[in-house]
Amino acid sequence: MAAASALRPLTGASGARAWKLDRPRPSLSLDEWDPASQPFGSGDKATDKREVEELSAEIDQLQDVLFADRRFKLLVVLQGPDASGKDGTIRKVFGQVSPLGVLTCSWGPPSEEESAHDFLWRIHQRVPKAGELMLFNRSHYEDVLVPLAEHGMKQAQALERCRQIVDFERMLAETGTVILKFKLLISKAEQARRLQARMDDPTKAWKLQAHDLEARKHWAAYRKAYELVLAATASPFAPWILVPADSKTHRNLMIAQLVRHQLKSMKLRYPPIDPALAGAAIR
Amino acid sequence: MAAASALRPLTGASGARAWKLDRPRPSLSLDEWDPASQPFGSGDKATDKREVEELSAEIDQLQDVLFADRRFKLLVVLQGPDASGKDGTIRKVFGQVSPLGVLTCSWGPPSEEESAHDFLWRIHQRVPKAGELMLFNRSHYEDVLVPLAEHGMKQAQALERCRQIVDFERMLAETGTVILKFKLLISKAEQARRLQARMDDPTKAWKLQAHDLEARKHWAAYRKAYELVLAATASPFAPWILVPADSKTHRNLMIAQLVRHQLKSMKLRYPPIDPALAGAAIR
Repeated sequence: MAAASALRPLTGASGARAWKLDRPRPSLSLDEWDPASQPFGSGDKATDKREVEELSAEIDQLQDVLFADRRFKLLVVLQGPDASGKDGTIRKVFGQVSPLGVLTCSWGPPSEEESAHDFLWRIHQRVPKAGELMLFNRSHYEDVLVPLAEHGMKQAQALERCRQIVDFERMLAETGTVILKFKLLISKAEQARRLQARMDDPTKAWKLQAHDLEARKHWAAYRKAYELVLAATASPFAPWILVPADSKTHRNLMIAQLVRHQLKSMKLRYPPIDPALAGAAIR
Repeated sequence: MAAASALRPLTGASGARAWKLDRPRPSLSLDEWDPASQPFGSGDKATDKREVEELSAEIDQLQDVLFADRRFKLLVVLQGPDASGKDGTIRKVFGQVSPLGVLTCSWGPPSEEESAHDFLWRIHQRVPKAGELMLFNRSHYEDVLVPLAEHGMKQAQALERCRQIVDFERMLAETGTVILKFKLLISKAEQARRLQARMDDPTKAWKLQAHDLEARKHWAAYRKAYELVLAATASPFAPWILVPADSKTHRNLMIAQLVRHQLKSMKLRYPPIDPALAGAAIR
């Protein structure tokens, strides 16, 4: 298992090519990271794919102990532009976990009722409870990114929301939630290839919306919005992990390694049998 | 694929050994069905296991179209005593569907707030919406079975709840929900073997509760409760399917065949691409 050594770059200083951001920064440029790089890869795609399958099976086993143990809640946040691979990650990295063991929540634009509350109201209702593994497919971060990139939200208000998010995530962490936030990095050219492939595939073309093509016009604005948000909301209790995702296999491998590493580090254990039942006869 | 011929016994008259109950009956005796029989099996376990895997992969593909199509909601209800294989069914039959594509809901005893409402209140909140595949691990039926078997509910009140359930399920069906209700049949001896195996396995022993062993004392009462409930709540729009489940492989095979058959019969299709986007260039 290459996991241990592959994790090294994550624990480096928070300079260029640190894949894990666990401190806020005054600013940040996404130019530091190359979406086509494969820092966690072995160099051989077949090997990497096999490792994803092994890691995915191991995550299934660890989830069972997470549930039994009940000491932790695990929240995995997936963020990234259209076609960056959020759905694919859920299928490939978490697809071996029993449907009973993994919860997913896909966040779209808020409803009228949701908008009438603070932006964290709907999120708070769906955070994991003890023993649960919850995947957020998009998240509360959309409520900063979209207004910033498309609706002229002022930077001061965006930073205020970021602070509110950090406070919220701190509270979750302090009450037993382990939070991993993955930002999938994809190049504009690779996104174009994937959107074109969707358009050409009759089992996928129905998913395309005018807004998906529209959003490409705001590519630079979204990039700037992400830079602000990542810099402001990286924390030790809810780190951002930047995942080069032009290669789907590399994306899966890196996320699977990190999720497995996180679960292993929690020293999960099965509780003992109820003492009243130990040795009881089944009649 | 043996599915078509294997389905034949389901469509027979509602007499003995009809596996599908789609009409209410004045009464019913579970003695008519043998939990150890394998009406859907090929006679060869390895063949049956392979078919479960194939069917499970097919269900994954069909779920994708179900979601895209948006004309139907699919609700699968799993009922049966402890250790009858509800969790195992979810893992083996639906485990290949992406976590994004299948929702599960495990129903335990109602909370104080839930009990302060009618018994269908909490259920209604979790019924599937358009395009969704929802699995109920136990269900609203517990709210008749448990009081009947353990708390002395009068038969008249139980029958009233059954009528309320039928009315509720009719409304769901009329508004686009396809409902399949599986009752897993397991012998008392096979349940004892499985509970003993749990007790002996340190990764599973923690799950055992005093009530699991207690409930065996009410075995006959639960059987009678099921007989009343199955007879009263079988309907064309929400049939009960009786699944011999002493063999795990047979249980998976039968349920997988029937779920696949149901999805196929819905003539699901991918919607066409948004005409405004057809042929659009991605810039």
